[in-house]
Amino acid sequence: MRPSSLSQWFQLAKKRFLSLTPPQALILSYAGLAILGTLLLKLPGASHQPTSWLQALFTAVSASTVTGLAVVDIGTHFTLFGHWILLFLMQCGGLGLMTFGIIVIHLTRGQLGVKQRAALRETFSHTGQGDVWRVLLWAIGFTAIMELLGTLLLALQWVPEMGWGKGLFYSFFHTLSAFNSAGFALAADSLTTYAGNPLVNIVISLLFISGGIGFVVIADIIEKRRFRQFALHTKLMLVGTLIINVIAMIVILALEYGNPATLAALPDWSAKLWAAWFQAVTPRSAGFNTLDTGALFPSTAFFIMGLMFIGGGSGSTAGGIKLGTFIVALLATWAFLRQQERPTIFGRSIQLDTIRKSLAIIVISLLCVNIGIFLLTITENGNFLDLAFEAVSGAATVGLSRGITADLSTPGQCIIIVLMLIGRAGPLTIAFTLSHARGESIQYSAGHVNIG
Amino acid sequence: MRPSSLSQWFQLAKKRFLSLTPPQALILSYAGLAILGTLLLKLPGASHQPTSWLQALFTAVSASTVTGLAVVDIGTHFTLFGHWILLFLMQCGGLGLMTFGIIVIHLTRGQLGVKQRAALRETFSHTGQGDVWRVLLWAIGFTAIMELLGTLLLALQWVPEMGWGKGLFYSFFHTLSAFNSAGFALAADSLTTYAGNPLVNIVISLLFISGGIGFVVIADIIEKRRFRQFALHTKLMLVGTLIINVIAMIVILALEYGNPATLAALPDWSAKLWAAWFQAVTPRSAGFNTLDTGALFPSTAFFIMGLMFIGGGSGSTAGGIKLGTFIVALLATWAFLRQQERPTIFGRSIQLDTIRKSLAIIVISLLCVNIGIFLLTITENGNFLDLAFEAVSGAATVGLSRGITADLSTPGQCIIIVLMLIGRAGPLTIAFTLSHARGESIQYSAGHVNIG
Ligand SMILES: [K+]
Ligand SMILES: [K+]
Repeated sequence: MRPSSLSQWFQLAKKRFLSLTPPQALILSYAGLAILGTLLLKLPGASHQPTSWLQALFTAVSASTVTGLAVVDIGTHFTLFGHWILLFLMQCGGLGLMTFGIIVIHLTRGQLGVKQRAALRETFSHTGQGDVWRVLLWAIGFTAIMELLGTLLLALQWVPEMGWGKGLFYSFFHTLSAFNSAGFALAADSLTTYAGNPLVNIVISLLFISGGIGFVVIADIIEKRRFRQFALHTKLMLVGTLIINVIAMIVILALEYGNPATLAALPDWSAKLWAAWFQAVTPRSAGFNTLDTGALFPSTAFFIMGLMFIGGGSGSTAGGIKLGTFIVALLATWAFLRQQERPTIFGRSIQLDTIRKSLAIIVISLLCVNIGIFLLTITENGNFLDLAFEAVSGAATVGLSRGITADLSTPGQCIIIVLMLIGRAGPLTIAFTLSHARGESIQYSAGHVNIG
Repeated sequence: MRPSSLSQWFQLAKKRFLSLTPPQALILSYAGLAILGTLLLKLPGASHQPTSWLQALFTAVSASTVTGLAVVDIGTHFTLFGHWILLFLMQCGGLGLMTFGIIVIHLTRGQLGVKQRAALRETFSHTGQGDVWRVLLWAIGFTAIMELLGTLLLALQWVPEMGWGKGLFYSFFHTLSAFNSAGFALAADSLTTYAGNPLVNIVISLLFISGGIGFVVIADIIEKRRFRQFALHTKLMLVGTLIINVIAMIVILALEYGNPATLAALPDWSAKLWAAWFQAVTPRSAGFNTLDTGALFPSTAFFIMGLMFIGGGSGSTAGGIKLGTFIVALLATWAFLRQQERPTIFGRSIQLDTIRKSLAIIVISLLCVNIGIFLLTITENGNFLDLAFEAVSGAATVGLSRGITADLSTPGQCIIIVLMLIGRAGPLTIAFTLSHARGESIQYSAGHVNIG
């Protein structure tokens, strides 16, 4: 191939990339990261035992979409080098890909146009006229601070237990995995050993809750400090997260209290409460577990499927339809039944466009998850509940499993790979979509709620 | 009690009933019919063996909500008198309760006010300015003609088989059960004996399809005769019904072709095609079966759960969220992704109000069905897929079962009873609800699609 045609090809590729819409660039970046990860994990030094192409692809997609489903035992299968590859993929995938998207656009276009800024503001769900770059700086700075703090705190547990080298790495790995809602752990039973350990429970759950609520919420809290001044989205996310976590904890405590394989096996009330708390907050994004997910009662598993489907905050590392989408759908339904023109909450009305967006996200998510479950029932012979749980966990990029991931057939694992990719890129793509609704009469001043 | 206080009580009751909104009157009527049915079925002459209160209540609710789930063998448990009670409940429930609702309002208010007419037009989903009474007359006349025709045609099969008396009653019972989408059959295995019988397949499926598509559609077809002149709702229902039935038949044929307990057991291609056709069209309303529902592969069962959830036409005897709701949700999602202000189809735009109504129905239906499944997983120990199937079948008033209805615990049967009642009254109630959206700019001329 002549150099001129090669340079022409590069010119063409650059031109094509420049003409991509942000969602297309995002999806392309995900695909690129997953392919890069697959190749890296296939390197001989990455694993102790040979890694098949399917295993490498599954693990790379699971890490870069920060899902955390695993077809091999992450801790023993991969070497230290392999673990660093996973850390790289998780960091790029969870926090990175969003900021990465902005940086790419900035680098390639030189400067953000008004339209791009608007689209990005939409993605980042930033309310008002503030600069999107401030949000980006917040996100990077906040990530660095949280991951440093998390590592130091977890080191208090794991350095005495494992020594400086292993203990620090263990702390860093789980901190990064938690803050990016990836949910990969180095032990085969995730964090089950620490079900009753307050330090591990507090640090890990605070990490993934703050990573999964969305940076705009964190930035708004730090900037404004007082609840009454928060943006509508921030208020909804804080109140919604509190309510859903408390309800989930009570339900799980009630359902699993008598289960000899989970809560009933724990020695005291303190351990039971910590385990119920952790099990209540992990399904909406993190995917770590301190109880044996496969031993949960069917009722608990089904309840957790609902939590996984709802997911965390918009523009965060969490998956699912997003808590904001869920709240808007409930408010819109309630307003319709009360024959009100617009849903209103905290003295603000929710725009019709947001309601249409929430319907679109719910419909597409339901179609994807149900088609995924349907295909799994064709390719697999396993228990229906376990298969449905796996499909929801993959599509909502959660990473909890009833223990069947490695046993899935090749087509079954491919279905989960596709679900993880769609689950990560789909809601972001829809969130980018701006509808062209015009000329609506506004009676309340309009507030903005993020969905998707 | 003194006569004056009794008459005062009647005066008060009459006044209260007059002040009810149509949905409240409807729900009260359902409750009244179910209670009346329970008392009638408890009469000694109604059944050969004793009927428990729970069995009587379950059967009465199942008949009056035209669901067709059964905790006893309908054919052998009840006497001829019992079967006539069921016929009465099914006719009142399926067609009757809607027309009954109009008659009650007419009788009690003397004349329909503008507001009541608007509400009724909404319920009957009648487009344009036509008189609602014409629709009512159509419905009654159409029912009488269809049930007469159906009975005569089925008698060609069953009179030679069973003699005049039994054969005619058998034909009338299944005709009424089919046209009202009730799905009660007199044989324990429903219509499995006639899986390959063209006459039974054609007559029964045409009866429940015409009953389940909605009277407004039928009336519109008979009145206008030409597709281009049909109302938007009629066009959508006809095209939607055709597409969904063809897709369902192909999917079921492909999935069950190798199942030795269903299609593979049938002798020839003709029987296989009839069985696949019947199995494709029955889940959206009727609830009869010609294949063993419990022997279907999990993939087929899950697919059928989707069909049951979608359901039939608005203002018909079918249940589910309704095909119109499903189509509107898909169109609205598609329009949003294409950044169009309004979904448009057949040269008409769909109103924002309709989209909000569709969101409300989907959200409430999902909550009800999933809460039902969740509660069943707590009260029952059975297979999760069977329980989920049962809950969807109850809430969508379909009546297909994987064979576990009679084995459910008392709380489990009560959950199904509640689901059947909510499933019948809920969507109608939401469909009654008129939202007060005003001042929207309309660019296309607005068409009307029924949802709920
Ligand atoms: K995760
Ligand atoms: K039915």
